[in-house]
Formats: sequence, structure tokens, C-alpha cells
Amino acid sequence: MAVTVVGSIAFDAVKTPFGERERMLGGAAVHFALAASFFDEVRVVGPVGDDFGEAEFAVLGTRGIDVSDVERVPGETFFWAGEYGWDLNTRETLDTRLGVFETFEPKLSQAARDSEVLFLANIQPDIQRAVREQCTGARFAALDSMNLWIDIARDSLVSAIGSVDCLVLNDAELKQLTNKPNMIKAAREILSWGGPSAIIAKQGEYGATLITKQNFFSLPAFPLEDVVDPTGAGDTFAGGFVGYLAANGGSGDDEQVLRRAMAYGTALASFNVEEFGTERVARLTGDEVAARVRELGRYTNFTDTPVALRG
Amino acid sequence: MAVTVVGSIAFDAVKTPFGERERMLGGAAVHFALAASFFDEVRVVGPVGDDFGEAEFAVLGTRGIDVSDVERVPGETFFWAGEYGWDLNTRETLDTRLGVFETFEPKLSQAARDSEVLFLANIQPDIQRAVREQCTGARFAALDSMNLWIDIARDSLVSAIGSVDCLVLNDAELKQLTNKPNMIKAAREILSWGGPSAIIAKQGEYGATLITKQNFFSLPAFPLEDVVDPTGAGDTFAGGFVGYLAANGGSGDDEQVLRRAMAYGTALASFNVEEFGTERVARLTGDEVAARVRELGRYTNFTDTPVALRG
Repeated sequence: MAVTVVGSIAFDAVKTPFGERERMLGGAAVHFALAASFFDEVRVVGPVGDDFGEAEFAVLGTRGIDVSDVERVPGETFFWAGEYGWDLNTRETLDTRLGVFETFEPKLSQAARDSEVLFLANIQPDIQRAVREQCTGARFAALDSMNLWIDIARDSLVSAIGSVDCLVLNDAELKQLTNKPNMIKAAREILSWGGPSAIIAKQGEYGATLITKQNFFSLPAFPLEDVVDPTGAGDTFAGGFVGYLAANGGSGDDEQVLRRAMAYGTALASFNVEEFGTERVARLTGDEVAARVRELGRYTNFTDTPVALRG
Repeated sequence: MAVTVVGSIAFDAVKTPFGERERMLGGAAVHFALAASFFDEVRVVGPVGDDFGEAEFAVLGTRGIDVSDVERVPGETFFWAGEYGWDLNTRETLDTRLGVFETFEPKLSQAARDSEVLFLANIQPDIQRAVREQCTGARFAALDSMNLWIDIARDSLVSAIGSVDCLVLNDAELKQLTNKPNMIKAAREILSWGGPSAIIAKQGEYGATLITKQNFFSLPAFPLEDVVDPTGAGDTFAGGFVGYLAANGGSGDDEQVLRRAMAYGTALASFNVEEFGTERVARLTGDEVAARVRELGRYTNFTDTPVALRG
């Protein structure tokens, strides 16, 4: 089963208390694709500018990602600059330049349209909708977004959400989108819209939670002493999650498959944050991922035994 | 095995988006004792003022809590007033009046001194140290504190921490105490001090994490759509955790017992936040607690199966 992803392909400038990069490969679609490539064939859709070079394509190439739907157009590649606070839990966006995304009108290849699995990574919801409409072969589609689009393009975003099976969003953004002060209530509200049947609340350093009509599942982040750059952690998580689903049935119907997909996403995200940008995941091995999934199982498991309670 | 707890016995004024109480029974030792009473005999140590009445004693009495070490002294009972923001994740303290705690010098009964298990709930670290010194029979002692004491009484707090087996603290406070930007690093630093062999990071709506030298275990909070008042959730968690340990060996040596203790603490805390103050836990049954522990097991469990990873 093949996975198609649309979303930002970018250069990032990132400063954290542990170092900085003035210009490195980034973007939601890039982080997603690198992670998903551990499980299945991945095809990236989106534009890059004149400044996007062979070195950047090579990073995607080493993991076998299909870039034939990446359009090179005149102009500047999407650029994002941000700075993180002392414990990496606060982030300030210093600059965002849409560049070639400003006028991007997706025209997908037949192979991309035929993909059984689709991920609409964070980008303008109008672009997400245009891609969703073209991907008539998609049996499972998921979507990520951010507070910016809730603020300035809510109607289009809600429409895009209505066209997918799974919504992936930060927990604070779930609350913002629904104006509900409680994450579970927010998720239940979105489940009632008739679109997604699974909601994933990304919770940063605390992990992620999966909420469906029938079930609830929560996983902590993989414990790390040294986190260097959280940029792309959510996209890497999504790549592991959606990639695992694609390689294991391609739907969100099996609760145990969904849970394992969460574990693989969590493991992949933990590698992503250990170094800047794509540096760590670009040289990651499947054995390393599998080892962290097993560890995560040990870190979360408990067995109940009957106990006499008073009163 | 009996559990002795020292900490605030208080009146609280609480305002949340879902209602308010102008004056209700509260305090860390009270919330702890109610939760721990599901597992073992609990003895509360601390002063109350002239304004502490039979109605307040009755709440403790209905759960069989031993109040013979509660001293009634002239003056005002500890008073705390606070207000929570729209999704309950921010809290402003409006007033704190130590009242009878200002001059409190603990003089414990022989029964309290002989307790095998001791909890030093959040209060001035000098009081915690005085109680710890008197409790020569304690085989297992745990301690909670807060940012205020890190700010104004750090040396005394560090000394108190050095005298216990388990430290329970908010994750942000662990970072503050050690000046480390990472929770795991902060916990490892404290483990190296030679006092506690187990650190519990309370993470509010995200749950709690247990860090020992050899192990790591994380549990999400029990998912709730309606949270009314988070006051006392951490103390209720600690009561469930320490109470379960006391009733099941009274030490922190068995990893599976520690994990189950975390689950019971989590379940109890989830009831505490469903209503104001002690209202929900005061009429809680053991069967309700056990049912949530079983549910929590279902919400966190996943099984790994071998998967072929690419690259």
C-alpha cells in the first residue's frame, strides 16, 4: 500500500538552548515522509523553490521516498524560523514565508491519486482539500493542522476535516477548534461531525492520546534526558502512525493495530527530537525503532491484582 | 500497617468556570487521608483552629480516619483561596493564611511515631523535618512540596527530601528544584542525592510518571469529560499511591506494586476532581475505585507484534 503526503517542504531556522541551525531541511511533509518510509512506499506532493537543491533531495532519496510529485517552481522554498524556551515547552515563531506555497495549485500524478493512504500534513486547508478531492483512491486519510488555520481559515479547515478518517491535532488546538475546555469533550464533539472516526491528541512531551467512539488509548512520550530540537516531532509521530497503519491493513478499524501504530509513531518521534531537523531520523535504522517500541511497552505496562478496599 | 500523614488541614475557597465554594474542607493532609483510607488505617497530624467544627471532623470520621493527633488550638484554621482558568490548567492563588500553622510545633503521639508508613504532605519543610525525626518507626516515607518552598525554604526542603524514600512533586517543580530543563534529568539528579529511591512527577491532566534508578513508568490521567475542581488531585493521588503501598508490603522495592499503586492513585484522583473539595471522595466506594483501575488498564495496554521495517 502506498502513502501520499502533502504539506510543507521547507527550510527551517531553529534556535534552542542546546544549539541552532540557520537553514536546514524541514517541513511537515518531509518529517512525515521520513518516518512513514520505515513502513511503506511514500510519495511527497508539494512545491519547492529554486533554492531547494540536490542535498535536500538526497535526504529524501536515501530513504527511498518518491519525489516525482515534488514540483520545482520559480521562487523561494517555504521558510520557517523559530526559537524555543529553556525547557523546550514554549516556542516563538520568528518568521514564516510561504514562498512557492502562496500560489501552489496541486495537480497530482495518477500514482499519487491512486494511493490507498493519504496524509494531509499541516498546510493551508484549501490545499489540503484540493489534494483530498484528487485522491479518489484513498481508503484512509488523516489530517494535521495548527492554530493559525483555526484562527484565519476555520471554515475551510472544518470542511477538510470532514473529508478524512483521522484527525491529528495538538490537545490545545482540539480545545480551540471546538471551544471546549476539555480534550475528551473536544474530541467527542469532532467525532459527532460525521467525518473522522479517530482523533489523536498530540500532547508534546506528555505523549499522545487516541480517542474513538468506542475506545480511549494514551501513551507517554518516550522518556529522553536530552532533547535538542522538538521541531517536526508531531509530523514524525504522524508518519510513524500513518505509515504503520498503511503497512498493516490501511484502515483505522482494528483497535490493536491503531495502538501499535501509536507506539511506532511515539518511538519515531523520540528519535526526531534528539538532534536538529531531520539529522537523526535520516540515519535511523528499523532495529532502533523496534527496540524503542519494545521499551515503551515495558514503560507503560501494569497488571492489576484484586485488592481488598475499605469502604 | 498504619499510615501517618502531616500536612495542611484547611478551609479552601475555590472558584472554577463550573462553580465555586466560599469555604469548604480542604488541605493536603485531608485529601491524602481520605484517599489512603481506602487501603489502610490513617492517622492525621496537624493543628486546626477554633473555626474547625464537628462537620469537618465528621467527613474524616466517616472514612475511619484517626484524628487523635489533630490538635485544636486557638486561632484560625489554615485558609487557601484560588481561582482556575477556563480549561483548569492555570490557577491563581488569591489568598493563603497559615493561621494555626504559623506557630505549630508537632508533638506526635506514640502511635503516630510508630507508624510504619509516613507521608509528609505539602507544608513548611521545617514541619516536615520535625515530623520525620519523630517518626522513628517509619519504614517508608514519602514527601510532597510546592514551588513556594523551593523559592523561600530550599535548604530545609532539600534536607527534608534527603530523609524520605519517595519524592512526589509536579514535573515543573522537579525542574525548578534542580534547575534542569528536563524532567528525567531532574529526577536522576535527585536520585543521586542519596535520599529518595523513587521520584513521582505529577503531570496534572496528563497523569503521572514514576522514575527509579532502574525503571520508568508513566500513566495518563483517567479520562474525564467533566472536571469541576482540580484542587487536591495531587494529594488524593498521593493518598492512593502511598495507601496502596502501605497495604501491600509498605516499601518501594517491588516494581509491579509501585505501578499498581500509581494506578490506584490515578483512579482516586479522577474521582476527586469530579466535584468540589472532598465532596466526591467522601462518598466514594471501593468498588468504584477498583472499576476505574481496571478501565485504566484497558486504556493503556498495547501488545507489540514483530513488523518488517524498511531500512
